[in-house]
Amino acid sequence: MEVTLTDGRKRVVIEGVSPLIDGGRFPAKRTLGDQVRVEADIFTDGHDSIAASLLVHREASDEWTEIPMQPMVNDRWTAAFRVKELGRYGFKVHGWVDHFETWSRDLLKRITAETDTPVDYLIGADLIDAAADRASGSDAEWLRKRAEILRSSIDPKQMRMHATDALLYETVLRYPDKRFATESDREAKIVVDPVHARFSAWYEFFPRSTAADSGMHGTFADCEKRLEYAAEMGFNVVYLPPIHPIGRLFRKGRNNNPESLPGEPGSPWAIGSDEGGHKAIHPEFGTIEDFRRFVQKASELDLLVALDIAFQAAPDHPYVREHENWFRKRPDGTIQYAENPPKKYQDIYPFDFESSDWAGMWEELKDVFLYWIAQGITIFRVDNPHTKAFSFWEWVITEIKREHPQVLFLAEAFTRPKIMYRLAKLGFSQSYTYFPWRNGKDEITAYLTELTQTPVREFFRPNQWPNTPDILTEFLQIGGRPAFQIRLLLAATLGSNYGIYGPAFELLENRPVRHGSEEYLDSEKYQIRAWELNRSDSLRGLITVVNGARKNNQALQTDWSLRFHFTDNDQLICYSKESEDRTNLIVVVVNLDPNYTQSGFVTLPLDELQIPLDRAYEAEDLLTGNRYLWNGQRNYVELNPTKLSGHLLKIHRKLKIETDFEYFL
Amino acid sequence: MEVTLTDGRKRVVIEGVSPLIDGGRFPAKRTLGDQVRVEADIFTDGHDSIAASLLVHREASDEWTEIPMQPMVNDRWTAAFRVKELGRYGFKVHGWVDHFETWSRDLLKRITAETDTPVDYLIGADLIDAAADRASGSDAEWLRKRAEILRSSIDPKQMRMHATDALLYETVLRYPDKRFATESDREAKIVVDPVHARFSAWYEFFPRSTAADSGMHGTFADCEKRLEYAAEMGFNVVYLPPIHPIGRLFRKGRNNNPESLPGEPGSPWAIGSDEGGHKAIHPEFGTIEDFRRFVQKASELDLLVALDIAFQAAPDHPYVREHENWFRKRPDGTIQYAENPPKKYQDIYPFDFESSDWAGMWEELKDVFLYWIAQGITIFRVDNPHTKAFSFWEWVITEIKREHPQVLFLAEAFTRPKIMYRLAKLGFSQSYTYFPWRNGKDEITAYLTELTQTPVREFFRPNQWPNTPDILTEFLQIGGRPAFQIRLLLAATLGSNYGIYGPAFELLENRPVRHGSEEYLDSEKYQIRAWELNRSDSLRGLITVVNGARKNNQALQTDWSLRFHFTDNDQLICYSKESEDRTNLIVVVVNLDPNYTQSGFVTLPLDELQIPLDRAYEAEDLLTGNRYLWNGQRNYVELNPTKLSGHLLKIHRKLKIETDFEYFL
Repeated sequence: MEVTLTDGRKRVVIEGVSPLIDGGRFPAKRTLGDQVRVEADIFTDGHDSIAASLLVHREASDEWTEIPMQPMVNDRWTAAFRVKELGRYGFKVHGWVDHFETWSRDLLKRITAETDTPVDYLIGADLIDAAADRASGSDAEWLRKRAEILRSSIDPKQMRMHATDALLYETVLRYPDKRFATESDREAKIVVDPVHARFSAWYEFFPRSTAADSGMHGTFADCEKRLEYAAEMGFNVVYLPPIHPIGRLFRKGRNNNPESLPGEPGSPWAIGSDEGGHKAIHPEFGTIEDFRRFVQKASELDLLVALDIAFQAAPDHPYVREHENWFRKRPDGTIQYAENPPKKYQDIYPFDFESSDWAGMWEELKDVFLYWIAQGITIFRVDNPHTKAFSFWEWVITEIKREHPQVLFLAEAFTRPKIMYRLAKLGFSQSYTYFPWRNGKDEITAYLTELTQTPVREFFRPNQWPNTPDILTEFLQIGGRPAFQIRLLLAATLGSNYGIYGPAFELLENRPVRHGSEEYLDSEKYQIRAWELNRSDSLRGLITVVNGARKNNQALQTDWSLRFHFTDNDQLICYSKESEDRTNLIVVVVNLDPNYTQSGFVTLPLDELQIPLDRAYEAEDLLTGNRYLWNGQRNYVELNPTKLSGHLLKIHRKLKIETDFEYFL
Repeated sequence: MEVTLTDGRKRVVIEGVSPLIDGGRFPAKRTLGDQVRVEADIFTDGHDSIAASLLVHREASDEWTEIPMQPMVNDRWTAAFRVKELGRYGFKVHGWVDHFETWSRDLLKRITAETDTPVDYLIGADLIDAAADRASGSDAEWLRKRAEILRSSIDPKQMRMHATDALLYETVLRYPDKRFATESDREAKIVVDPVHARFSAWYEFFPRSTAADSGMHGTFADCEKRLEYAAEMGFNVVYLPPIHPIGRLFRKGRNNNPESLPGEPGSPWAIGSDEGGHKAIHPEFGTIEDFRRFVQKASELDLLVALDIAFQAAPDHPYVREHENWFRKRPDGTIQYAENPPKKYQDIYPFDFESSDWAGMWEELKDVFLYWIAQGITIFRVDNPHTKAFSFWEWVITEIKREHPQVLFLAEAFTRPKIMYRLAKLGFSQSYTYFPWRNGKDEITAYLTELTQTPVREFFRPNQWPNTPDILTEFLQIGGRPAFQIRLLLAATLGSNYGIYGPAFELLENRPVRHGSEEYLDSEKYQIRAWELNRSDSLRGLITVVNGARKNNQALQTDWSLRFHFTDNDQLICYSKESEDRTNLIVVVVNLDPNYTQSGFVTLPLDELQIPLDRAYEAEDLLTGNRYLWNGQRNYVELNPTKLSGHLLKIHRKLKIETDFEYFL
């Protein structure tokens, strides 16, 4: 019963505003320079014309920009704006009955039917005078003169000419009568992130495994060399597992052995020891100055460094002493370690988000982010955010981005779908996905369509990883080198954001700790590994080519244009992406079978892709340099996994024919 | 930036509550006795168990009923309640972390793995004590004793037995720890209407055309006889076009002639003359006492009378004199009549919803409804509601239903889809639809699926009409008697609410005023018609049978169970409906072709319809009494339009076989 008598004359209805996440509860996401296309259903009772506008402002500012909206079909209106600054924008929609437009429209019909009468012009004169009242200066004066002419003229031909004058129309419309304008229910929000939020290629490596001497613990100086290696392959983000001191109590040994031998390094996720906690550097890496130099070196190579933030503590973390009440105590006075009964993780204490000092804890955890931001870090990969309170994430991300809108957060939550989406709504800039386990054509098509072609895309930005230190999929374990090729091609072209955990990935590491497990044998999580980066079977070369193609083709820098296309072979998947201006069109074909050559016809919707129907066009393979002449919608493809499992085709829509040459003219 | 530090420990998230119209802006609709099944996505961080409940109240009451919710799949929870009173209900959802349930669940795992330790039982004891603090009386005492046992016992077997006691579990769960419970964002609303809102068969007739003597003006006494005629056919609502005095100025003549001859009755929608306006009775019908008797007579026949409310005025309506400012004045001092340039409707003045006295006008228009409610009317068919301000409808319907929750409003808005849906959201109990113009199988299937199987059904209740005084479709004009049969069968079985404009419908009236028009020739809108009700080709008999089947089969009293089924002939449409308890199953097959016999196979999803796969079943035709033995999912159907264009099949799922007989035992 929310109807009040105060808005009785607001006759325009506005509903179905888009983008709008959960009725405006959460912001939609964009990156710098993106276009925001706003739509709404706008209509009124009866037959009057209406007008509508979109009002946009930076959230922190009272300065609003008003943009006229245009009708499409079925009472849907639209307007668009570009976001040119980082941070938050807000927008709302106004709609109102436009009596002058109604009068103009009807008058034209009357004139056509020759049923216009003098009173019709008097009505117009009144409307023009009302516009003059809303205008000022010369416009007001000019409008009053026009009204006077309509009132005083007696020559019908003259009246018609004056009343239908385009300049009159435009001038009146500049002063709309918004007395009874309706405003959309709730201000919609947009959060604008750096372009990296939409387009990034991540390379994860364990800094401990970078020493030149096999078996030695890597330092930040060693890591600088690994930066060059990653940069040469064309990545633009390097991501390090936690770099903090590692707990000594209950430290894990190699292959997750509950007991470690002396000298074993332990898991980097068991954070904190006498040497410090989440704001400290593991001494074997070097000092904070070394870290800053490492970040600086990355920056010179156009790489951003992403840090891992894992909010949990080893039993010897300073927090455990200093903030006992941030952890859950058991009746025997001991602190509750992490467990998933009957499994126990005695090396890790989870924070208690129901702690009486939850507010103090939130502030300190925020301060961890701020500390690393002060060291030049702008990307955080957050470990298991779904095991910490949701409201904490909304608060901390919102607070941090208010001061540091350039900062990005990747949610490492491999959990149920509603939870993954909720974390994205709360503010995470990117999210891991179920991509590692989507290997068949139908499941890839269904999942990627959900992520890129439904309202999910307004808040959830996928980051596609074929492997992680926790995920060595059975597809990779079984499929040999072709499996790695296939997953690389899919990740890097289906995902404008993608990443690999290397060098395990490019060096085709595929031995699980045991059959049925997705854990790596001799995982770097628990030991130092030495990697032969220059092995001849490394995928390094292919990765370099793929990342190069991504960099040179805007089509591969967004997921919103993704379209799957028909093939007559279930092992061949085909899809396309286009740049926003549609000048750059990429078609990808991948043989999903790591074992056998597969061939078949792919069918492209030429009309939709703006490819001429009656001429040949060129498909240039960016992986091999091969150029194919394609004709019509159906074209043959054959892919041999022992050679290369995919085509990455840049489409040149127009090939020259005789009429294109000068001598023809 | 709506995050505050006050709710930090509320860890449960509630989203996706359903039913919820536009985020709670509008109520969902139900009828008396319906079940409301509420669903929501509810989850928390980490691995703790959660609990959730649904809280329901009558809107006017502070008394809430709490109903435990149950998890389904994918973090979706549900609970249901029945609405047993008319008017508005509100509901919200609570969710909270359930530490006792978490402890119980984990303890069972520990016991299974034989890893339970004394401290596990101490934790349980603390949780039980906390529950005792929330309980009182004997429960509190009993719980404290249980806690003590867990603390003091030393025999592991005993401990296990006490800790996993079902009574303990149930008792603790009765006292949940809701300190940090989350509440759904906005209270959701339900409006509960009488069953007529869901299940009604309407018969519209012009009271002017009911006199026994041809050419005479009908009276309410004549109309009483027509009531019997409608009741015999099995209708439960009779709807009359406006019964008010008709304006004399610019009165229309027969076939919409701009000028009327003396004695012509004019259009009932040109309301108001010296004899009164919207609260008066056209003198030729009789007096208000005659009207009350008519309503009383209807009631005796189990018929409700629906009145037409058309908010517009003839130029001689008393409102025009008494409330000049409710109408738009033109600069020459005349009042703006209705027009759709270049067409003019000088016999009708629209109300100006931007009038300075809009509030006074709203009150008076509301008073029109209240006046007729006082005369015993509970259903209003509202003429062209989309040409009056939307906010007026929301206000007036909400206000009226607060005092008179039994009152129903049918929106006669044949306009664009968003507008029709908006009117339904604002409060209209039923709505006319595009059904008159949906004649092909695909378009019927798509449209009815949208109306009955999407969230639209939560607020929009279709009322399906094959004809109205304004709509004589080309299908009816062309297709002869079979076309009327087809449209009747479809309307009455696709729509638990349907209506016909008679006797034009049952007497197969199909002459348009001219080719290309949907207006009737010699329309009753402008003249009195005499009808030969007993003509031998009347559809009266079929209508009676169909309405009887509707009354006897709950399946036909709802649209929510509608499912379309495959047929191998595009002229044969097949669909089914079931009662809520699934005991009543109706399958309808209609030959959409009015010209030729059509035959083919219909395919029923036996599994879904709970029909045995391995036995014959019976399809009893409620139209003819014929009984068919059907086998398996594909069965042959042949329909000859010169005989009967459809089957209305009641399915008897189980036929007896030898094992069903007593002697077999």
